[in-house]
Amino acid sequence: MLVDLKRAVCEANLELVREGLVIQTFGNVSSVDRATGNFVIKPSGVGYHVLKPERMVVVSVETAKVVEGDWRPSSDTPTHGVLYRAFKDIAAIVHTHSLHATAWAQARRQIPALGTTHADCFHGPVPVTRLLTAKEVREDYESNTGRVIVERFRKLDPLAMPAVLVANHAPFVWGQTLDDAVRNAVALEYCARLASETVRLRPGSRSIPTALLDKHFLRKHGCQASYGQK
Amino acid sequence: MLVDLKRAVCEANLELVREGLVIQTFGNVSSVDRATGNFVIKPSGVGYHVLKPERMVVVSVETAKVVEGDWRPSSDTPTHGVLYRAFKDIAAIVHTHSLHATAWAQARRQIPALGTTHADCFHGPVPVTRLLTAKEVREDYESNTGRVIVERFRKLDPLAMPAVLVANHAPFVWGQTLDDAVRNAVALEYCARLASETVRLRPGSRSIPTALLDKHFLRKHGCQASYGQK
Amino acid sequence: MLVDLKRAVCEANLELVREGLVIQTFGNVSSVDRATGNFVIKPSGVGYHVLKPERMVVVSVETAKVVEGDWRPSSDTPTHGVLYRAFKDIAAIVHTHSLHATAWAQARRQIPALGTTHADCFHGPVPVTRLLTAKEVREDYESNTGRVIVERFRKLDPLAMPAVLVANHAPFVWGQTLDDAVRNAVALEYCARLASETVRLRPGSRSIPTALLDKHFLRKHGCQASYGQK
Amino acid sequence: MLVDLKRAVCEANLELVREGLVIQTFGNVSSVDRATGNFVIKPSGVGYHVLKPERMVVVSVETAKVVEGDWRPSSDTPTHGVLYRAFKDIAAIVHTHSLHATAWAQARRQIPALGTTHADCFHGPVPVTRLLTAKEVREDYESNTGRVIVERFRKLDPLAMPAVLVANHAPFVWGQTLDDAVRNAVALEYCARLASETVRLRPGSRSIPTALLDKHFLRKHGCQASYGQK
Repeated sequence: MLVDLKRAVCEANLELVREGLVIQTFGNVSSVDRATGNFVIKPSGVGYHVLKPERMVVVSVETAKVVEGDWRPSSDTPTHGVLYRAFKDIAAIVHTHSLHATAWAQARRQIPALGTTHADCFHGPVPVTRLLTAKEVREDYESNTGRVIVERFRKLDPLAMPAVLVANHAPFVWGQTLDDAVRNAVALEYCARLASETVRLRPGSRSIPTALLDKHFLRKHGCQASYGQK
Repeated sequence: MLVDLKRAVCEANLELVREGLVIQTFGNVSSVDRATGNFVIKPSGVGYHVLKPERMVVVSVETAKVVEGDWRPSSDTPTHGVLYRAFKDIAAIVHTHSLHATAWAQARRQIPALGTTHADCFHGPVPVTRLLTAKEVREDYESNTGRVIVERFRKLDPLAMPAVLVANHAPFVWGQTLDDAVRNAVALEYCARLASETVRLRPGSRSIPTALLDKHFLRKHGCQASYGQK
Repeated sequence: MLVDLKRAVCEANLELVREGLVIQTFGNVSSVDRATGNFVIKPSGVGYHVLKPERMVVVSVETAKVVEGDWRPSSDTPTHGVLYRAFKDIAAIVHTHSLHATAWAQARRQIPALGTTHADCFHGPVPVTRLLTAKEVREDYESNTGRVIVERFRKLDPLAMPAVLVANHAPFVWGQTLDDAVRNAVALEYCARLASETVRLRPGSRSIPTALLDKHFLRKHGCQASYGQK
Repeated sequence: MLVDLKRAVCEANLELVREGLVIQTFGNVSSVDRATGNFVIKPSGVGYHVLKPERMVVVSVETAKVVEGDWRPSSDTPTHGVLYRAFKDIAAIVHTHSLHATAWAQARRQIPALGTTHADCFHGPVPVTRLLTAKEVREDYESNTGRVIVERFRKLDPLAMPAVLVANHAPFVWGQTLDDAVRNAVALEYCARLASETVRLRPGSRSIPTALLDKHFLRKHGCQASYGQK
């Protein structure tokens, strides 16, 4: 089942290691096949050096239950399921504990759009969720993590803002393709680090003006985009 | 004697270099064979590029004296001995001067549990010992280093908290297996770095709620663990 | 056309990756052939792993229009054009979003000359432009980016100060040769990082005395230079 | 002349690159042959990738003039000469602009002995020189750099404190052997970085107690040393 997707998801997981976004067994990537209503995700707690396409796990979007695979899926699987159900236009999700994005998540601060590097990728500040209640943590924790993300996006477009910081936890990032999702995860970490350095140089730094934010985001995204090759 | 253990300990010492936790001749790993009452430890002041299994030193847990080996054991050997005698369930000890964990030790601040990355590995703040007195430094220094660690753990479970910061010195980390001990040393450095970044973004950061701390730690440790493969 | 220059510009773009100054498709290098009035620049949004000399684009200095090449030139091409028209003695331009220089640009702070490392390369603080107005952003944005740089250099010599920080954006760096421009971009990032570390250790740090600034800059640059081989 | 010494000095210069202590053409290593009264030093402004033993320059300790070699010696040669004349027991000198040590030099702050890592290598805070006067900068600058170092060491033992920070400039480090000098330069950079991280976590950090400083320094240095192999 979904042999090509397994290969692509396995490769994307390994790309996280090469990009320095994960250590040990932290982090996971999934990608969805909307036609069959299933997504492919990394197995739980398996070291990156032994990841293979055939060890990827196939999970139903609807139920978040395993459809195929001998291995347990990532413990974050229910979170992925909630996001695929709520955000119909995304094709892949990347979860890491990458250093600087996670520091902002732990500080429970949104990452302001402090420059054009950020505006090239994210159309506004990267939002942070509310804290889960003790009850939400104790019961159905992983699904509730997805729910607070969806709650935070009530007035946000997940295609214009393909990332979120889960409070006291870490980022979740997505994209319209698997490549986009990985690229956004790398960009988020870079923008988070840039923002950390910037607020140390100027503690009260604020987001850039809307004109500049729009110019850079829309130069690269949407129907008016002029960046790159046709 | 203990040929397999020597090979494993030698390899674990080299792993510290690959993980960026040690420079020059700093740092040492040991592992105990409870059946014979001996542990194997790195020789003192020997560069990592010339480490070999047969150069590892075998030391008695009881006396901390050399049982076998042509080389002097690490100068921290008495500290390892005290810990093996006090913490009966640990199998290996890792001592490094890794950058961020050592900075917290030098600042004599415990590392608060600021997020789920920390909670996945450490069931609470990573504690810091008291300072040794001048007398404790001058006489039997290395054993006294072990004793202030044990003193600090009077009300702590060394399996739920497999790391400590020795004030003005550096971390000691352990585990129920040699692999666990190395993994915990890597995780400690990462959590220390994450915490440094977080407290700069939000100076008064406090530990996460107990419910979240328990959820993440117990998801990975103990009889209720659901993380990873069965 | 300009086959040797294309090869050199392609190679210089790849050097940015090796030096850690760019990620993804950010950044671009160009170099001018004053005899023909054209410059060669990286194509827009093309990954560094597929850059080849024959994919470089030839652009007219006068019009900033493409003269040769099947690919769209970098979106920053009009900025390069303005700089080549205004600064007659420069031969190459490097634009990156390198971490520390960009943090200073985002903080809209000039980088003070805090030590001899800086003075060896830059004859004074590295300046920052004013913000563009919303109108300047919306219409002819890339050319206006060049114009605010030129405006900032009204009283500055671009050969003594081969770098600028565009406010809320990132650095542009240049040189009298392509090698110089790349070297200056590397030096700028290093000096920016050094300055960040220094102001954290001493928040009110000020530029070094003029005598020391002159001694180091003039030891390496201009007709009195004594550094290096004859 | 001094063929073995040239090979060793060339190799030590390259070691600085591998250790990440220098970029571009910054930095230089020299080593002295006390029997002939000459020292061997890196040529000026030559890239590390083209360094070869036969390009090293032989200089007289007494006069700081070139004795042999087709290349100009490092511009810092007169500084090395002053140090070899004043500190009779040192065999080699390393000058770098390594990031964290240079930041402390630019901040004109001595590096306090904040932990045992520092105490293992440096018997007290690493001192910083006074600023040179404008006159000292304009005339005979490089020799005066050596003189302010010697002036700062009037009450210090260069073997117990094998490093200094030249204010607004960078560190000079030395040792009783060439290997020691390089090792001390690496240790200085690590201790400087550790100290930067520590003072951010606890701004008013002070040096560790004398008992602990002595214990660690004397465990590794001098006639009572017990560290390492006999």
